[in-house]
Amino acid sequence: MTIDRQKALELHRRARGKVKMYPTINIRNEEDLAMAYVQGSAFAAEEIQEDPDRSYEYTGRANRLAVISDGTAVLGMGNIGPRAALPVMEGKCLLFKNFGDVSAIPVCLEAQNAQEIIETAKHLASSFGAINIEDISSPNTFDIVKALQAIEVPVFSDDQQGSAAVVLAALKNALTVVDKKLTETKIVIHGAGAAGIAVADLFLYLGVKNIVLLNSKGILGPDNPSMNHVQQSMSERVNPENLKGNLKEAIDGADVYIGLSSRGTLPSEYIKRMNDSPIIFALSMPTPEISAEEAQAAGARIVAMGLSTGKNPIPNLHIYPGLVRGLLDVRATGLNKNVIIAAANAVAGVVDKRRMNEHHIMPDLFSDETAPSVAEAVAQAAIVEGLARRSVPPKKIYDDTWQRLFGGYLLRT
Amino acid sequence: MTIDRQKALELHRRARGKVKMYPTINIRNEEDLAMAYVQGSAFAAEEIQEDPDRSYEYTGRANRLAVISDGTAVLGMGNIGPRAALPVMEGKCLLFKNFGDVSAIPVCLEAQNAQEIIETAKHLASSFGAINIEDISSPNTFDIVKALQAIEVPVFSDDQQGSAAVVLAALKNALTVVDKKLTETKIVIHGAGAAGIAVADLFLYLGVKNIVLLNSKGILGPDNPSMNHVQQSMSERVNPENLKGNLKEAIDGADVYIGLSSRGTLPSEYIKRMNDSPIIFALSMPTPEISAEEAQAAGARIVAMGLSTGKNPIPNLHIYPGLVRGLLDVRATGLNKNVIIAAANAVAGVVDKRRMNEHHIMPDLFSDETAPSVAEAVAQAAIVEGLARRSVPPKKIYDDTWQRLFGGYLLRT
Repeated sequence: MTIDRQKALELHRRARGKVKMYPTINIRNEEDLAMAYVQGSAFAAEEIQEDPDRSYEYTGRANRLAVISDGTAVLGMGNIGPRAALPVMEGKCLLFKNFGDVSAIPVCLEAQNAQEIIETAKHLASSFGAINIEDISSPNTFDIVKALQAIEVPVFSDDQQGSAAVVLAALKNALTVVDKKLTETKIVIHGAGAAGIAVADLFLYLGVKNIVLLNSKGILGPDNPSMNHVQQSMSERVNPENLKGNLKEAIDGADVYIGLSSRGTLPSEYIKRMNDSPIIFALSMPTPEISAEEAQAAGARIVAMGLSTGKNPIPNLHIYPGLVRGLLDVRATGLNKNVIIAAANAVAGVVDKRRMNEHHIMPDLFSDETAPSVAEAVAQAAIVEGLARRSVPPKKIYDDTWQRLFGGYLLRT
Repeated sequence: MTIDRQKALELHRRARGKVKMYPTINIRNEEDLAMAYVQGSAFAAEEIQEDPDRSYEYTGRANRLAVISDGTAVLGMGNIGPRAALPVMEGKCLLFKNFGDVSAIPVCLEAQNAQEIIETAKHLASSFGAINIEDISSPNTFDIVKALQAIEVPVFSDDQQGSAAVVLAALKNALTVVDKKLTETKIVIHGAGAAGIAVADLFLYLGVKNIVLLNSKGILGPDNPSMNHVQQSMSERVNPENLKGNLKEAIDGADVYIGLSSRGTLPSEYIKRMNDSPIIFALSMPTPEISAEEAQAAGARIVAMGLSTGKNPIPNLHIYPGLVRGLLDVRATGLNKNVIIAAANAVAGVVDKRRMNEHHIMPDLFSDETAPSVAEAVAQAAIVEGLARRSVPPKKIYDDTWQRLFGGYLLRT
């Protein structure tokens, strides 16, 4: 889908912000003022002084997400800085609200390095229920998320965990269609940035044995001349056949190609070197590694793209609104791979098995089922994993939340 | 006014946050998604890359205020920490929205010292149009506001400049009623925290010659045994008669008493030692230095209180929504004392001169005139002072803004 530049700019100008703070309480007289501000706030403050976790009870913290970026790896645009990243982060916050009823706040940081972002996020944590690290370049994004694992709220990177979850969801259904087992497939991951590394990490955790990962200089392994510290450490866990070279050498006999490169391409003749029923995910944005038509003509059995349009679109949007909704609903203290897997399985499960085929491996992007299903699965997983402050059964939570999600809070319902 | 604790807590629990992020754009289909997120955001991002000031054009930055606190000096409660401060900051954000249509975001920081708050505010500045430093203990609040004067957006402390402006507004009208001149009055300021110091600083700038300032140990001057660095430096600019001692010694012949203490008291017999037509502002919260009844019985000609109820209430609420509205509307780069004075004069000017008397020196707290008048005066002053990114005449801006303020955006209209 192509859109008109002037129309899009005009929309942004008129919106004066794609998300805005609105009051939930009406202040019309002295009593309203006393209830909501000085005296009333003081009562709430006293309660929280007694037990800091009551901040989830008496403030908006329980539904508030910080979307933190330094603007160093935005869409396909690279390092554009915090000001230019702001419309993108506001767009993300809009989608969090629209699809997950999350009160998401864009926080673009003028920061010089990972340490400054880590410090800022630590300072901010007590005002939020969760933190999303967004569009921060690799390997900084890994260092930041890792350093923040010990704080009191869940911190995740949509570029890492969101991408890993959506790829897993799509691949799960794709493998069902071609009747292969995940652990027995050979998977080539083209791109070793935030998404590529996180997808490899999740697949290793799930027992996939034959993963080959490439950065722009070639296959990750002892001979690769240019690896950052995250790629270096990942290179010791993948490429069991010790392949050397580039995509051409990696692709032989692969069952799955996952394109998460920036500006990478998949020549169509490589698809012919793959195993039978090749699965091609060309997820680079805005320009995919290969077009869907070309891939199919070259023999790909299943093709999926990262964009929100076309057949089998697998943008992270399937995952993140429900993931954060679920984390917030149980007042999570953190998240782990099992929570991410639960989210992926929930998305995969929304697709009706009887209607699943090559061209239909993912739910409709605007399905009203996805976010609530993901949220429920994530809440359940967080409770089971001991990562929840609330231990009421998720069923109980989702009796409420479904009501809320479908009860008119969302503009689109 | 006393309110019921359980009712107030219930209100907070139900609100799930007194302010919440809402979308301004509806996402119903792929085109909406393309316009507001990946493609559309990228167009806006490109524009901002070309000129960072376009971040005011294409994002919500132009209407977004950060209310930053570390929770060290909250209401009368002292150092309660960032979590307990959250309901108070959300309340403040609610009032910014309700009275000024400002999209205000509560940012409570887990910070150990002024330097950490300064660094965090610098990192955050590019996402906001202005920053309000709130309820941070003195002298940190002064060090922080001073260190942030050079950043790209206005940074002010409501405790400092907001208090100074509202006191000036009230005193201006009070002096009209008693027919005295500001520069010729003797003013005793009881309390040398954020507000006391800032009020003294503004009055000195306005040419008031005889100011006596006290902290909890007595009159600021060479003999005071306990002054922080801000009080120390202020002590060299006040107390021209070199008075020693405490309130009793300070009050002789004063025209004006301004109570900005925490837990200070003004014994009623001291009022008898003042000049004729004594003016008493007892602004300590939640307990004023003297009750209005007591002060009047002791001979006070004009009495005003900091609370939002009773006669002549002069809470900062008269100032801050309009002040920030005006700063945002001209995309201000900063603010100075002339801007603060403009805000004060605007508030004072809302009171109809023919109806002004001892019991009526300030506008009604719910007057629809105050915030727009303050905003217009502040915008004008910022332009004149060279502190505005937009140099269109304020009249033009306020043709729009009044329309906006009264056009149904505010819930209470």
